[in-house]
Amino acid sequence: MALYSQTFYARELTELFSDRIAISKLLQVEAALAIAQAEVGIIPETAAKIISDCCVIDAIDPISLKNDIVLGGNVAIPLVKQLTKVIKNRDFEASKYVHFGATSQDIIDTATILTIKEYLIWLEEKLNSLEKALFTLTKKHLHTLMMGRTLLQQAKPITLGLKTAGWLEGISRTRTRFNELKSRLYCIQLGGAVGSGNANITTEVQMAFAKNLDLYPSFPWQSQRDSLAEFASILGVLSGSLGKIAKDISLLMQTEVGEVFEGAEEGKGGSSTMPHKRNPVGCALILSNATRTPGLVSTILSAMPQEHERSAGLWHAEWETLTQLMNLTGGSLEKSVDLITNLEVDKDRMLQNIEITNGLIYAEKVSLYLSKSIGKMQAHESVKKACTLALQQQKHLKEVVQEMHPQIESIEDLFKPENAIGNSVVWTENILKKYS
Amino acid sequence: MALYSQTFYARELTELFSDRIAISKLLQVEAALAIAQAEVGIIPETAAKIISDCCVIDAIDPISLKNDIVLGGNVAIPLVKQLTKVIKNRDFEASKYVHFGATSQDIIDTATILTIKEYLIWLEEKLNSLEKALFTLTKKHLHTLMMGRTLLQQAKPITLGLKTAGWLEGISRTRTRFNELKSRLYCIQLGGAVGSGNANITTEVQMAFAKNLDLYPSFPWQSQRDSLAEFASILGVLSGSLGKIAKDISLLMQTEVGEVFEGAEEGKGGSSTMPHKRNPVGCALILSNATRTPGLVSTILSAMPQEHERSAGLWHAEWETLTQLMNLTGGSLEKSVDLITNLEVDKDRMLQNIEITNGLIYAEKVSLYLSKSIGKMQAHESVKKACTLALQQQKHLKEVVQEMHPQIESIEDLFKPENAIGNSVVWTENILKKYS
Amino acid sequence: MALYSQTFYARELTELFSDRIAISKLLQVEAALAIAQAEVGIIPETAAKIISDCCVIDAIDPISLKNDIVLGGNVAIPLVKQLTKVIKNRDFEASKYVHFGATSQDIIDTATILTIKEYLIWLEEKLNSLEKALFTLTKKHLHTLMMGRTLLQQAKPITLGLKTAGWLEGISRTRTRFNELKSRLYCIQLGGAVGSGNANITTEVQMAFAKNLDLYPSFPWQSQRDSLAEFASILGVLSGSLGKIAKDISLLMQTEVGEVFEGAEEGKGGSSTMPHKRNPVGCALILSNATRTPGLVSTILSAMPQEHERSAGLWHAEWETLTQLMNLTGGSLEKSVDLITNLEVDKDRMLQNIEITNGLIYAEKVSLYLSKSIGKMQAHESVKKACTLALQQQKHLKEVVQEMHPQIESIEDLFKPENAIGNSVVWTENILKKYS
Amino acid sequence: MALYSQTFYARELTELFSDRIAISKLLQVEAALAIAQAEVGIIPETAAKIISDCCVIDAIDPISLKNDIVLGGNVAIPLVKQLTKVIKNRDFEASKYVHFGATSQDIIDTATILTIKEYLIWLEEKLNSLEKALFTLTKKHLHTLMMGRTLLQQAKPITLGLKTAGWLEGISRTRTRFNELKSRLYCIQLGGAVGSGNANITTEVQMAFAKNLDLYPSFPWQSQRDSLAEFASILGVLSGSLGKIAKDISLLMQTEVGEVFEGAEEGKGGSSTMPHKRNPVGCALILSNATRTPGLVSTILSAMPQEHERSAGLWHAEWETLTQLMNLTGGSLEKSVDLITNLEVDKDRMLQNIEITNGLIYAEKVSLYLSKSIGKMQAHESVKKACTLALQQQKHLKEVVQEMHPQIESIEDLFKPENAIGNSVVWTENILKKYS
Repeated sequence: MALYSQTFYARELTELFSDRIAISKLLQVEAALAIAQAEVGIIPETAAKIISDCCVIDAIDPISLKNDIVLGGNVAIPLVKQLTKVIKNRDFEASKYVHFGATSQDIIDTATILTIKEYLIWLEEKLNSLEKALFTLTKKHLHTLMMGRTLLQQAKPITLGLKTAGWLEGISRTRTRFNELKSRLYCIQLGGAVGSGNANITTEVQMAFAKNLDLYPSFPWQSQRDSLAEFASILGVLSGSLGKIAKDISLLMQTEVGEVFEGAEEGKGGSSTMPHKRNPVGCALILSNATRTPGLVSTILSAMPQEHERSAGLWHAEWETLTQLMNLTGGSLEKSVDLITNLEVDKDRMLQNIEITNGLIYAEKVSLYLSKSIGKMQAHESVKKACTLALQQQKHLKEVVQEMHPQIESIEDLFKPENAIGNSVVWTENILKKYS
Repeated sequence: MALYSQTFYARELTELFSDRIAISKLLQVEAALAIAQAEVGIIPETAAKIISDCCVIDAIDPISLKNDIVLGGNVAIPLVKQLTKVIKNRDFEASKYVHFGATSQDIIDTATILTIKEYLIWLEEKLNSLEKALFTLTKKHLHTLMMGRTLLQQAKPITLGLKTAGWLEGISRTRTRFNELKSRLYCIQLGGAVGSGNANITTEVQMAFAKNLDLYPSFPWQSQRDSLAEFASILGVLSGSLGKIAKDISLLMQTEVGEVFEGAEEGKGGSSTMPHKRNPVGCALILSNATRTPGLVSTILSAMPQEHERSAGLWHAEWETLTQLMNLTGGSLEKSVDLITNLEVDKDRMLQNIEITNGLIYAEKVSLYLSKSIGKMQAHESVKKACTLALQQQKHLKEVVQEMHPQIESIEDLFKPENAIGNSVVWTENILKKYS
Repeated sequence: MALYSQTFYARELTELFSDRIAISKLLQVEAALAIAQAEVGIIPETAAKIISDCCVIDAIDPISLKNDIVLGGNVAIPLVKQLTKVIKNRDFEASKYVHFGATSQDIIDTATILTIKEYLIWLEEKLNSLEKALFTLTKKHLHTLMMGRTLLQQAKPITLGLKTAGWLEGISRTRTRFNELKSRLYCIQLGGAVGSGNANITTEVQMAFAKNLDLYPSFPWQSQRDSLAEFASILGVLSGSLGKIAKDISLLMQTEVGEVFEGAEEGKGGSSTMPHKRNPVGCALILSNATRTPGLVSTILSAMPQEHERSAGLWHAEWETLTQLMNLTGGSLEKSVDLITNLEVDKDRMLQNIEITNGLIYAEKVSLYLSKSIGKMQAHESVKKACTLALQQQKHLKEVVQEMHPQIESIEDLFKPENAIGNSVVWTENILKKYS
Repeated sequence: MALYSQTFYARELTELFSDRIAISKLLQVEAALAIAQAEVGIIPETAAKIISDCCVIDAIDPISLKNDIVLGGNVAIPLVKQLTKVIKNRDFEASKYVHFGATSQDIIDTATILTIKEYLIWLEEKLNSLEKALFTLTKKHLHTLMMGRTLLQQAKPITLGLKTAGWLEGISRTRTRFNELKSRLYCIQLGGAVGSGNANITTEVQMAFAKNLDLYPSFPWQSQRDSLAEFASILGVLSGSLGKIAKDISLLMQTEVGEVFEGAEEGKGGSSTMPHKRNPVGCALILSNATRTPGLVSTILSAMPQEHERSAGLWHAEWETLTQLMNLTGGSLEKSVDLITNLEVDKDRMLQNIEITNGLIYAEKVSLYLSKSIGKMQAHESVKKACTLALQQQKHLKEVVQEMHPQIESIEDLFKPENAIGNSVVWTENILKKYS
């Protein structure tokens, strides 16, 4: 799977999701525990110091670690074994206090939270970049006329700004979601074998441990996975919102539409056999991720009913799934920033496309106009008839309508796109105000 | 599917999810629109009054409505048609202003939000009942000793209170989640054909419309489905948390465990062929729902990348899926309140089960105790050996340990369950304080 | 949910999935069991006759049945209770032999198989209609030129026949799949309380029971759900293949493409506000179903690890899910037959669209042609350059290429669509032969 | 994710799913294409020979390959670029014929099929081992008495052989499924840019290409993914069936049940803090995989509606998902062979557990016996009463029944487990005959 490590994931997250960092987070947690226990007087300070000093990535042999996980069923068991051996070689007394009173899940879950926290720092910065790029794009195209489309049919004109303002709103709400879930998610897991604590895992140790790791103290949540599931879900929501943007852009890039394009990069989006194509490669990858994330969220939710004080399988189902969710969503976000920042817009083509129906897309406008005088239903019927005639005779709707309703003054105004965009500009300006 | 309408869903929600109410919510939205447009002077007040008066469920023929949905592709089209006809019969002028400037999705999405809002009122009340029942159960069993189990193996004793305090925490966090998402979710959708508004769908109309429906005004979100997806996800999280409770109870009800039971109701949980069985029927239904909700959340997330200003299919995929998610989660919650309120606890059996390993479950305690004198690794090895001996010779671990380590004083204390529960009581008391 | 019973489901299946038929299938199984037991001499023939006579839908009160399901946890328990009461009133002796030695799951699972069998008869007939319609469409458009598109970009010309031949192949393979799974799926479930049989559920009873129902005898599969899961999966595959067809058609119906259209039916696909639109309403519903079925298949697969001899929840999760899968896939199929049979094709527009890139889509053809003389890489580069020039100068590629490579003879031939469709016709003819 | 490469996946498949093999399969396809084209006289034999010789893994730089995928959007583009460069260095003429007339998807899809084929050879061998192990286990425990359990409650006795015969049946049916799908799945994909072929991709080339790769020739299926989706689904079914076995074993391993155990391996299943525990580590990993596979199948099904002649994203969603599905299912299978081969059975504990209800589990037997004389309903009621009395007075049911029905002769026989197992032995023997 490493083959696609650059394809679907975020380049900038390669390090964070490396084995090296995964192991070092676990060691960071073991160190924080020892220090916390020393702080409240449970273990000697010298022991804590030695343990902490030994909790470095080079102390661990990753190959044998991987092989041994399968025996104990989780990574903490062989890690603690290796770590204890290293410490024993240095100081026998200190080795007694490694992982003191803790259970594997305490270490793994807390390390997961630390990873998520670092991930979210990156994600929020990236969300910030995306919002800025969307803001800039929206501002730039406040007045850019284009077709609005419903059910893949041209409907009536809007502005590009209105469309991108909607994208911005969706992304921005998810930033708030991440913000809100932090108070529930950034919690230590520290409860010992069955989550009840013990003489070495006391309330005081929890407080000190949490403080050392800059997390919140918490009642053990080792088989209450709701906060992780919420986090996974919101990643799924973000991936979906980015998929929405990519869907729109990929459709607008169609040869027959040709209104926007992914920024050209040397070698990007080329076809191996068709030199003229400009493939929506970035969009395809974001859409691919948006196709994959829902199944992964579903797995995390399926894994919630964990048995008793630690599950036989459901906990394990979270590990790789959560990492993949973070990787895929991170990848989509990184690619989206690039996509939006470098998006090319063909305003002329947008205007041309508005005209391809020979005025049919103004039908609603005409209908609304006529409804003032002849009522909604009758206006609707009359315009429908006009549309049919226009299609049959390949005439512009304006012409047909004028023949049918010669009384209409200033019919030109009814067929100007800038008069058909409703409140696009005002509503977009409101969004711009909100985010500036 | 109606066959199982009482089986998996909430009895109390039958009405809310009836066709009748579905239609009446749509009518309520049409009425609110007309009134809003009258308030800001776009349509005559008399017309609005007439429209509003006609927006009653009896105006609509549900049979032909169902048949006609398939033609237009959504329920609003035939509904508006029927409604307009009714109004026309009463007042031709008023009929011009039905659904004035709006689009189908405005009506359907806003009606969905109204339904969700009513649903959440019910859900939160029910969550309140469940939290109270869990609080009472936790308080009652603050000191009730039972086995803690990890990977389906007996681990070490805890209290029942500690276990149920964990359940309470998981449920309570989700109440907060619902609370937080309201500001994003309780929003009108009103944007006309392509979400840009028009002369009849202005900012002022949006404000008045929102006020009439007691919702927030909002930039159109017709193809930004993140808030619906968040809501669906949190339902999935709740269903999973309830599944966790049901999983634990169903396992504790096993004949070989027998520690808790669903409250007996005449005829409930009986087997058609085995008169002695006490089946976890309530748990089974909650677990069934928890098995189904993840796939439904996945569908909602898959449906997020909706094309342009209205999707050709993805929007449609939400309708029944969202209703099913609300129904299943509501059903689980209703059943959970019943389950927790009437839960029967067999404290004696809990104590007996603590003893079935001949003291093996105290191994960690002994190990921790010994580690003070002989170090962690050595203590671990020694106790492992003692356990093997105890198993081989079918002796109680206490006996074996005493032979191996005659220096241990007060060995009895090491083998008392009440001494092996760590901080169960204190931590549970903290939870009780938090919720009282 | 009944609101959408005509929208997403098959009209022709309404009856099959009614509560009435669901109950009558259960009764049919009870009757078959009694008759089988009489045939092998376990119960009196008169009793079997009376039981069988009473197994009629009118014997059952559906309202109280629905209410009572929740107590026993499945529909068979209250059904047997009601049935026994009815028979007792008629003949006390016969009432002793109702559901004799059987368990609820025997009845429910076998009834499910009977329903599936009836469903598959319908489905295969419908598949047959769809294949015929696709065959006809393919034959008719064997030579119809249109653009082939990859990554939503125009690539090079194909024929419509080639495209629809691919659709046909996908559908046809799934018919084979259904055929093959029948030998595994059309099996009775009859094993008594724990699937071990008993004095009244013998091998002979199984044989007679299977024969009466025209199913295969089978080792009990009450907690081995692989065949149901396979069936669910193949429904998912079919729904996906139909979704692929609908996706293509909906894209081809875009205003900017306009190459095919759903057959016009009075009132179908109309927009409530835009009288000119021709919405892909049928496609939207098929795509909606294809968005929903994967999550449902996922649920069925998630429900496979059923505990011991009958699950506490996972079995229950199958009931509605399987029905929905059948309903949604059936609905998609019914709509697809209509869609393909009435598909309108605009050949002129197809030809026009081939020309919109000013010859760029012939780039590969030119490249392949040039590669004979100057090598692949150089040809690729040269054509790439020509394309860039053509775009910049808004010239036709033919012109640019001729300037760059004046030696090319018969350049016209390189730019005729009928020369650029490769083996479209031959390959399609092969498919037509295969299916005629 | 590499951290868990030994944990969830099959050790024996590490090589097959390495980047090295992934790349070499792609090269194998390129070579086969060149050779096929030479065989039918399209390219010079010498060129084909050189291309084929250069298609070796060492020709490719994997690092730059990974980096470049993201530009073109798939692995074939940079691969062909690298390959062509290498060949050009050796023979300029030959370099013209690399990837001649083919498209990326031809190479990638065909390589995927080659990988699947190799995977299935391994899988079927492993399935064979598992079936043999299950056969042996079933034979060995043909008469081993144990409790049958429904809804997690003791129901009535069965034999262990009956249970494992069911497992065997489920696994064996899936072997048939894989067999049947081969004729649809083992097909080349070779159609050029849009699946229509061209002068260099002819029917003859397809035939020769297929023969070289030992695959079936086929109409292009580049956007008809039903066979891949079927394959993915059957993997999901297998993973579910293995999950069912693991679920049963993990439940039987519960401390309070203790009837079977995973074979002990040094260091396996140990807890870091509770030396006495014997965790179901293998089961946990298999159950974890069974929790993850449904979501992945759902992704593959969601990815079916691929646009036109190649999708912008849905095709891409398959790549890693399919690999993960194969990896996880392979891992479960490898672990299951180990699990079943080394399963330890505690027959004594099984007998003891049969007795823990004081005879209540014989209630059905007594009920059936009594029903002969007093009718089913009355017998049911009488036994229900007896059960209540037995529970209240903590008496054995036998005693209570004898008091209530002193007329029953040979009451002892009603309470012997070997008399309560119905047709367990005969039915299991039938299965043994079927598989020997």
